[in-house]
Amino acid sequence: MLKLYYAPGTCALATHIALEEAGAPYEAVLVDFRSQSQRNPEYLAVNPKGRVPALVTEKVTLTETPALLCFVAQRFPKSNLAPLNDPFALAQVQEFNSYLCSTVHVAHAHRMRGTRWADDAAAIEAMKRKVPSNVTDCFDLIEQKLLRGPWVMGDQYTICDPYLFTIASWIEGDGVDTTLVPRVMDHRARMLARPAVQRAVAAEGTQIP
Amino acid sequence: MLKLYYAPGTCALATHIALEEAGAPYEAVLVDFRSQSQRNPEYLAVNPKGRVPALVTEKVTLTETPALLCFVAQRFPKSNLAPLNDPFALAQVQEFNSYLCSTVHVAHAHRMRGTRWADDAAAIEAMKRKVPSNVTDCFDLIEQKLLRGPWVMGDQYTICDPYLFTIASWIEGDGVDTTLVPRVMDHRARMLARPAVQRAVAAEGTQIP
Repeated sequence: MLKLYYAPGTCALATHIALEEAGAPYEAVLVDFRSQSQRNPEYLAVNPKGRVPALVTEKVTLTETPALLCFVAQRFPKSNLAPLNDPFALAQVQEFNSYLCSTVHVAHAHRMRGTRWADDAAAIEAMKRKVPSNVTDCFDLIEQKLLRGPWVMGDQYTICDPYLFTIASWIEGDGVDTTLVPRVMDHRARMLARPAVQRAVAAEGTQIP
Repeated sequence: MLKLYYAPGTCALATHIALEEAGAPYEAVLVDFRSQSQRNPEYLAVNPKGRVPALVTEKVTLTETPALLCFVAQRFPKSNLAPLNDPFALAQVQEFNSYLCSTVHVAHAHRMRGTRWADDAAAIEAMKRKVPSNVTDCFDLIEQKLLRGPWVMGDQYTICDPYLFTIASWIEGDGVDTTLVPRVMDHRARMLARPAVQRAVAAEGTQIP
């Protein structure tokens, strides 16, 4: 039995959806960010980074969303969530997910998590001001070049889709004009029609705009 | 024949080393950051993100270091650069590389690339001031928990090693007290003793402290 540590409104939703899509046996465990539970010694013993998601498996505890998504695809190959045996296609999946974690999520994080990168209140405000244009630039690239449609990689639903859906659910809050990214918004609606997505969203109580 | 677009002093070195380790047929193409060539229309046609690395393959052009590293391992399986068929071990490789791209590289980037996240000169200076402690925190975790030794994943040299080596070559510049991370420094020295590393470093003219 896998155990997924999550908090609502975080990127843990991507792995949560992937587990549902895969029909994986798992338990979801809430980490209460309101009481700063991610900094409790008990949770730091699970994940020394003090972040979510973390996935406890039969053998090892894993963190970092792109790794967890790839793990779910490879551990439950019948779910067909990634082109595991095609180096070119798998690299494109990894490329998309790496972009989300290293650039898009980071652009977003400067709105609420500016204290990670500066101690000065004015600097944190300056970072916040740039979030709308930065996240818009990222989603413009996704809209114009990366999202093939109907799914990120084209006809095949993959581990890119829950991850895009999760980060795209934050863009209104980030100040993106959603009329500029109609294909991203269609993708979000298409995701919300999937029972696995509905189950994960409902279980977390995550609000999707 | 693969084509790797790189610039000295960037994370492209990780893929450059992996290609050398794999004995891959490739050509390395310099993107001259001093003349802002990464923003030329010719280069943007290769990589719309305007960054390095980019790897032109027989089928597709790939970006994002974790994806490129995994591609090299999977495309040249005899090189044994990743535990491709073990979902648990491969996820640990991906976890480490995801951490480097989404957290460690990002912590470093706030020293020289602050304009990505704020327009205000004082804010950019405030970000720079926090870089030494942020990068130190990352490397403390690597030193204490993540780097198993002698290689990142233990006895097996993997695609984690060139990536760690590359980012660890920046830590003096980031203001990290290297006496606090002796195992990371040993790893760097161990890497520099490998012919493949020497070839990639020499070809780029990259300075390793």
